[in-house]
Amino acid sequence: FLLPEPGWVLGAKSDAAARRCREADLAVILDTAEVPRIGRVKALIRDLAKVVIDHHPPGKRPIEGLVLSEPAACATGELVYELIDRAGGPWNAVIARALYIAILTDTGGFRFTNTTPECLRIAARLAELGASPEALHRAAYGRFHRRRFELLREALATLTVHRNGRVAWMTVPADAYGRLGATIEDLEGFVDVPRAIEGVEVAALFRTTSDGRIKVSLRSLPPVDVNRIAVELGGGGHLRAAAAVVKGPLEAAIAKVVARVEEGLLD
Amino acid sequence: FLLPEPGWVLGAKSDAAARRCREADLAVILDTAEVPRIGRVKALIRDLAKVVIDHHPPGKRPIEGLVLSEPAACATGELVYELIDRAGGPWNAVIARALYIAILTDTGGFRFTNTTPECLRIAARLAELGASPEALHRAAYGRFHRRRFELLREALATLTVHRNGRVAWMTVPADAYGRLGATIEDLEGFVDVPRAIEGVEVAALFRTTSDGRIKVSLRSLPPVDVNRIAVELGGGGHLRAAAAVVKGPLEAAIAKVVARVEEGLLD
Repeated sequence: FLLPEPGWVLGAKSDAAARRCREADLAVILDTAEVPRIGRVKALIRDLAKVVIDHHPPGKRPIEGLVLSEPAACATGELVYELIDRAGGPWNAVIARALYIAILTDTGGFRFTNTTPECLRIAARLAELGASPEALHRAAYGRFHRRRFELLREALATLTVHRNGRVAWMTVPADAYGRLGATIEDLEGFVDVPRAIEGVEVAALFRTTSDGRIKVSLRSLPPVDVNRIAVELGGGGHLRAAAAVVKGPLEAAIAKVVARVEEGLLD
Repeated sequence: FLLPEPGWVLGAKSDAAARRCREADLAVILDTAEVPRIGRVKALIRDLAKVVIDHHPPGKRPIEGLVLSEPAACATGELVYELIDRAGGPWNAVIARALYIAILTDTGGFRFTNTTPECLRIAARLAELGASPEALHRAAYGRFHRRRFELLREALATLTVHRNGRVAWMTVPADAYGRLGATIEDLEGFVDVPRAIEGVEVAALFRTTSDGRIKVSLRSLPPVDVNRIAVELGGGGHLRAAAAVVKGPLEAAIAKVVARVEEGLLD
């Protein structure tokens, strides 16, 4: 999510990005502290002093510089809020909007477990400072291409609730990208469908990758740990949201994953 | 939404409700101030002193008693929060959960225009007092029957974006209730589909009522006023969310409503 000011975004390959980096005194890296995650930007900011602000758990190949790391923050936007707030501002509506959308999207619209009292209190303050909750929710979640819903219709035709009612999944037709012009972005939130069915504890979305393997996204309700299941399948993620890529064909992948999930439910 | 303590709910016809009302000293009426909206309850509380707490605009047939009315409140839950807070409590997790869900659902998950700074600040305080944003979001929006999604699939097959791209609608198959065992509750949020399509300013959902007429739900983005359109069609509601019941058959109803909406867009 690079809302609400798309005009600020420069491609890492662009001349404009190279010029900006030459003219800059400082590089501020947000939302990751890891060298492998910044790609081409690494070379662009080689000679600049660096400040890293992130809320992810520290990884293996940290970016060197001054690091502000706080995994308890609901979003990197919360840390940026604190920095500006402790400096006494200055505040304006553009900053308020940017930080609101950071918090909104990192909490899934104030619904994930990182929606803390502090997170809601900061959102309140940002709304006071000029962020419009309605307009920003619409910007983040209310502007889909029509083909997203055509794809959803096809995926819904595959919705399966496992016989015990605790596991449900959907698949995305392998030819949908070509036929509908759909992209992976169009799949945003699809896994929420099987997750939202009453009684379901583990939800999965299966899609075929460009190299013919099967990507499975897993979601769970407390206390089920899908990260452990994903790790065993060669992937990983978070406790309640994880993913893995497994061998095809689709039917074999579903059978394998569902069997593993059922073991997880018995644990 | 009568979450999160369904055990508290008594049917207005039940003996238990009659007994409770006989034993009570006071009747507190929440979220409406209108006699026609309380149905059978009116007779049950006839001899009791009454307190009315509501955030809807005052109507024509008010319930008599002590009335606390504040249309600027995001939810009646905000008013109840203020009352308890100003009294200095007592607070417990059950009260915090009940008020949180009132605010959550009346703001559509913190996304409607009534999501004010005050609303978010109260949500923060309620989370501190024991309301879990994740669990309560799941309770309100994460427990659907599977048939909801079967119905959604059929409705998506009818998704139409009008040629100018500013109006979109879906219809619900007239026989879906019988065939899928679906209820009107299963349609919750369906109108968000056409509304979420990029460029759409007015979204509609059409469904056939039990008496063969056509109910249309309308949603708009600022600045379009669908209330005015709904009033002209014999219905009403709010500025951005309104509804009307019009004559069938379905195709004629769609043509009529879409023509009226197009005029509204030209205004």
